[in-house]
Amino acid sequence: MEEEAKCAANYTALTPLSFIERIASVYGERDAVIYGDIRFTWTQTFERCRRLASAVSKLAAVGDTVSIVSPNSPALYEMHFGIPMAGMVLNTINFRLDATAIAVMLKHCEAKIVFVDVQYLQVVHKALQTVVSSSSSLSSWRRPAIIVVEDRLHVAGAGGESNTWNSFLPGWGELVEYEDLLQTGDPQFAIRLPADDWETISLNYTSGTTARPKGVLYHHRGAYLNALVSVLFWGMKEGPVYLWTLPMFHCNGWTFTWGVAAMAGTNIIMRNMETKTVYDLIAKHRVTHLCGAPVVLNTITSAGSHEKKKLPGRVHVLTGGAPPPPSVLSKMEGEGFDVMHSYGLTETYGPALVCSWKPEWNNLPLEAQASLKARQGVIHLALQEADVLDPTTMMPVQRDGSTIGEVMLKGSTVMKGYLKDKEATRAAFKGGWFHTGDLGIIHADGYIQIKDRSKDIIISGGENISSIEVESVLFKHPDILEAAVVARPDEHWGETPCAFVTLKDSASNVSAGSIMAYCRERLPRFYVPRTVIFSELPKTSTGKVQKVVLRERASALNTPLKSASKL
Amino acid sequence: MEEEAKCAANYTALTPLSFIERIASVYGERDAVIYGDIRFTWTQTFERCRRLASAVSKLAAVGDTVSIVSPNSPALYEMHFGIPMAGMVLNTINFRLDATAIAVMLKHCEAKIVFVDVQYLQVVHKALQTVVSSSSSLSSWRRPAIIVVEDRLHVAGAGGESNTWNSFLPGWGELVEYEDLLQTGDPQFAIRLPADDWETISLNYTSGTTARPKGVLYHHRGAYLNALVSVLFWGMKEGPVYLWTLPMFHCNGWTFTWGVAAMAGTNIIMRNMETKTVYDLIAKHRVTHLCGAPVVLNTITSAGSHEKKKLPGRVHVLTGGAPPPPSVLSKMEGEGFDVMHSYGLTETYGPALVCSWKPEWNNLPLEAQASLKARQGVIHLALQEADVLDPTTMMPVQRDGSTIGEVMLKGSTVMKGYLKDKEATRAAFKGGWFHTGDLGIIHADGYIQIKDRSKDIIISGGENISSIEVESVLFKHPDILEAAVVARPDEHWGETPCAFVTLKDSASNVSAGSIMAYCRERLPRFYVPRTVIFSELPKTSTGKVQKVVLRERASALNTPLKSASKL
Repeated sequence: MEEEAKCAANYTALTPLSFIERIASVYGERDAVIYGDIRFTWTQTFERCRRLASAVSKLAAVGDTVSIVSPNSPALYEMHFGIPMAGMVLNTINFRLDATAIAVMLKHCEAKIVFVDVQYLQVVHKALQTVVSSSSSLSSWRRPAIIVVEDRLHVAGAGGESNTWNSFLPGWGELVEYEDLLQTGDPQFAIRLPADDWETISLNYTSGTTARPKGVLYHHRGAYLNALVSVLFWGMKEGPVYLWTLPMFHCNGWTFTWGVAAMAGTNIIMRNMETKTVYDLIAKHRVTHLCGAPVVLNTITSAGSHEKKKLPGRVHVLTGGAPPPPSVLSKMEGEGFDVMHSYGLTETYGPALVCSWKPEWNNLPLEAQASLKARQGVIHLALQEADVLDPTTMMPVQRDGSTIGEVMLKGSTVMKGYLKDKEATRAAFKGGWFHTGDLGIIHADGYIQIKDRSKDIIISGGENISSIEVESVLFKHPDILEAAVVARPDEHWGETPCAFVTLKDSASNVSAGSIMAYCRERLPRFYVPRTVIFSELPKTSTGKVQKVVLRERASALNTPLKSASKL
Repeated sequence: MEEEAKCAANYTALTPLSFIERIASVYGERDAVIYGDIRFTWTQTFERCRRLASAVSKLAAVGDTVSIVSPNSPALYEMHFGIPMAGMVLNTINFRLDATAIAVMLKHCEAKIVFVDVQYLQVVHKALQTVVSSSSSLSSWRRPAIIVVEDRLHVAGAGGESNTWNSFLPGWGELVEYEDLLQTGDPQFAIRLPADDWETISLNYTSGTTARPKGVLYHHRGAYLNALVSVLFWGMKEGPVYLWTLPMFHCNGWTFTWGVAAMAGTNIIMRNMETKTVYDLIAKHRVTHLCGAPVVLNTITSAGSHEKKKLPGRVHVLTGGAPPPPSVLSKMEGEGFDVMHSYGLTETYGPALVCSWKPEWNNLPLEAQASLKARQGVIHLALQEADVLDPTTMMPVQRDGSTIGEVMLKGSTVMKGYLKDKEATRAAFKGGWFHTGDLGIIHADGYIQIKDRSKDIIISGGENISSIEVESVLFKHPDILEAAVVARPDEHWGETPCAFVTLKDSASNVSAGSIMAYCRERLPRFYVPRTVIFSELPKTSTGKVQKVVLRERASALNTPLKSASKL
């Protein structure tokens, strides 16, 4: 109809870049970033982001990818606005990866600029050398510009090291330091807003450790929506004080990099996760919100009494990334943290399902509450549907709380697709649903509960065993700090549960047998671990236990005939 | 790029219909609607909406307009979901309009179905007769289906009247009652979600009293976004208890019809605005949120002590629709209401600017706080920009808090346009901004303050007088209940301020002269009303004073030579 004039007045692409423009104008004098003794107001942060956008515009073109290898830092936060302001794609890389993995990513996304924290210069150097030597033709690989982020606050002697930067990367030309780069940028840079909100804002590689990494593409629309509905379901009011216990490279900080700006909050940035620092910063800045995987929560509550400090008020904690053991939830609540549980994946911009709490549940015993809270829950307001389907028939499973199927999602906050991987994208969206790869059940009340990753389920004698259920019991054991359960090949049963366990410092005289006995009292017989190994748990940088590594160890324990013949 | 697969899994049109689907599934057992003794859970409301969608699908086609003339009621609430679920456009009409105005609207929008509350059957009948008699050819006007909403709770003897319905509308065939209609609908009706979120969800005629009414078109995307960002800036948490003091026909209840569903709240529906009922319902249902124009707030605080009840907790009030006099804000706060001020127009889905509160303002004297709160403020998170521009040059005015210009907006929650009015749409969006027609200033801190409607400004001796500023002073007078100031034609000055004033019951011995003296102490000399008239104020159904009527009265007081010769 002609009266429907789509024009500049009534149509704008949705983008989280509008958050920082708005907040710098309204709450410009408020602290945006606090990092040790460093403080930037929103006016300053906005100006620094525009300088960054201006500076990178001279080094690369609209649509190019800009990678960064860095722990949490003001620079990393600023890139979440500054890079897309230049129309470029932000690619944050897990700084704990090795050179081989980083090389694969840099090559895959054809990074035109690489920002690197000075502490990770060597590994990135090695990664770049790998790329260069593996490239058959130099034309397919234009050497990216390298910008060094000198984190003067945290890296002892970094100032001195600056003289030696160039020796790390012979032939790469003069390296530029981040702050010097900003000086070359225009603080009045005209922000490039997306013409279409389906434009890519960022690229996040999944943390999968076995397969080739998949590059998940986010668009401005999804980033805007996920940020808004996440602050909404979390009940975040204007002006939160948000502590960065979560690495920002993880789904762009579950989109709270942008969400904190939307709510005119203050970012308390932490470079490394240290328990004492967490309590210190909470007390000092009156922190109101923080995020973390269950393992981070476990670390926080397991802190020694000399590290802990009284909380200054309610501290809202959002957990996700792995199913939280009910015992961890109970402990956090007992310490005065207000825990909300959300579920999501890199492919869903982080939070997708949320365990929406019902007031009537407050009257249940604490343990029952924790069990309810451990469920992954229901969709947030930017998704359209979630269900548990039989992946073969694509029919919903019974809502009986026991039939296992694959958790599937659809809606506006599901990724655009995987970069340069048509096949994987097609597979992920088969049948008009995003296949999460997580196995779960759906309860009669519509709440979804994850039972396992497809590949983590243990099949013993034809029966499915949820490794998570076994772990939940182990987590309740008074002497166990952490536990992970994987399949161990077995000639007779196919697989049996194998538990890897870390004990608390206070534990003494705990045997494998006593742990099995503990499980036998609380689990079906075939769920009980046949093997218990006392060991540190290998983890990804986001705190996820690397079950793939444990599975290898479990397999190496013995090589049963049957498995051997199959392998 | 091929990897970017826009498909059912990762792209859905934004629509508030997703809110009720989600909430019925998660909080189905929670009260959705409470109306006297009537209670519907979200499961029931969802089912009733689907029945409605199914039933209207048999009477009209996708894209058709469905009008309703009704005060607040469960049926009116249900139509906000049920009509768009059928792919039709919801047109809520101000029930206080006369037959002529209603006829103009019904004809203009070519309503295919008209729902009418039984109390308004006669006026709608008259309106329909007007349409029929004014239509040159019957082919251009297909008689709409009429559905009567019998409000058994509130209309005494309505049950008896049902037998006499048909006598109201001879020749219109058998009329159907709303509840009977629902019975014909399928509770499992497959909801028609919009294919594109730019599809029209509703049509709202502006309450302008002089010009021909303009039909403002809303799309699903704007309705979704405005509902979400409004609950966000209001700090509404999950599970609000929302009291409907605001008529739903007004910008679809400032989009809170949908917003309450988004937050899984409970709608306490009030048919008529009665002070005692407001306090009773707040106490009975522990109301947490309500909206109202300043005049509604004034009515609430001016209630007699026998009508008032202690508030059960913080009651959050959102006011807008007219600039709130600081004295009204102070009084509400003094009674324990937590008032937030927002500004918007029919063209912006209601709320557009919000007077974002800064914690440091809490330390100011109460009167200073009220003055700050009376400012219209800054954009919410779904708009892109607001500014005060010179409408001729389209250049921003100085941010000096005194230069007057026109308030202009742009962003995703500005209407699609005016129905069948290309010219008005083009004028409204001239230069890529939505022209609000409101005159205002912008303060150094970026907060916008409305000084007047373009047509309400008084120009005396070449100087602009803001009628709102004069009214603010009058509102502070201890004996004045309400006041409105308009221009009175004057041979010498062109115009002079003319005040219409309503006194409190307690007032005695207040003269026009004493009011002028009161103003002289507090205002520039030329701002002081030259005329003070004691009178009831004519109002629109949304509580806005009808200044057009007052201007006519002021003009009729005398007819100065100059004006007369011009007229």
